[in-house]
Amino acid sequence: MDPAHIQPFVDATVKVISTMAFTTPKLRNIGPWDKTLAAGQVVSIIGLSNENDNLQGFMTLGFTEPCICRIVSNMLGEEFPHICDEIREAVGELANMISGQARKRLSAQGIKLQAALPSIISGNDLIVDGSEKTPRIMITFDTEGGPFEIGLCINGLP
Amino acid sequence: MDPAHIQPFVDATVKVISTMAFTTPKLRNIGPWDKTLAAGQVVSIIGLSNENDNLQGFMTLGFTEPCICRIVSNMLGEEFPHICDEIREAVGELANMISGQARKRLSAQGIKLQAALPSIISGNDLIVDGSEKTPRIMITFDTEGGPFEIGLCINGLP
Repeated sequence: MDPAHIQPFVDATVKVISTMAFTTPKLRNIGPWDKTLAAGQVVSIIGLSNENDNLQGFMTLGFTEPCICRIVSNMLGEEFPHICDEIREAVGELANMISGQARKRLSAQGIKLQAALPSIISGNDLIVDGSEKTPRIMITFDTEGGPFEIGLCINGLP
Repeated sequence: MDPAHIQPFVDATVKVISTMAFTTPKLRNIGPWDKTLAAGQVVSIIGLSNENDNLQGFMTLGFTEPCICRIVSNMLGEEFPHICDEIREAVGELANMISGQARKRLSAQGIKLQAALPSIISGNDLIVDGSEKTPRIMITFDTEGGPFEIGLCINGLP
């Protein structure tokens, strides 16, 4: 994947998490997809497509329980020790905001992506994957509460 | 959700599973979303959207381990006792085929939905959810290997 197509997701993530959770995530790494890293214990997935069906994929936003509990406790001003409905809803909203800002930047580069609604999955021993035929990368960030990941699996980018 | 928009997913599921896995799933129920039912142990999620951004959502296809092992063993003519990469890939392909056939039928009704790529998530104690503000339904089917579910979470259908 062209770094010019990845950077909008990095910038959007830093901006959204900083604004919503008052903690600035630090980019640790942009590397290959790791299906056991993609999720942690809660992950939101947003499908991406375009009207000509030549761009298709999805974005994942995955957290471990300690990391997302810290972020959502900051967001909502209330302590959340465990993953619950409020946390799942917040993860979906964060994914939606990150995808929205990144798509806006990509649109300025002439790449128009439509977003589906975010789904949210929580559980144990999560493995998140897409087709091996599709370019996939994983962006890891560090926060006070621990690391989290953005995964991109997108076919057809120029 | 209008039954006319649900039926294409029911028909596509029966056709795809029957054709691919030589076992005819029987429709058990069309009912409210159940976030612990949506998945079982492996779930594929496909984002849905349209070019005007007035239709957005996703489809889930979720199985328990015994059910999907039976289906994929039938599909590939090889025994799969546990969820593995081959099974995850097959679940994504089944979701893609079901979504493709259902979207074709919906298109004939004037409803154009574009699909993202399928993501596949496996794990334990899975909970799959979408926004409570979005119409969500769950379609349950029975097979020899046990039940499985199609979940629909779609905003903006007429």
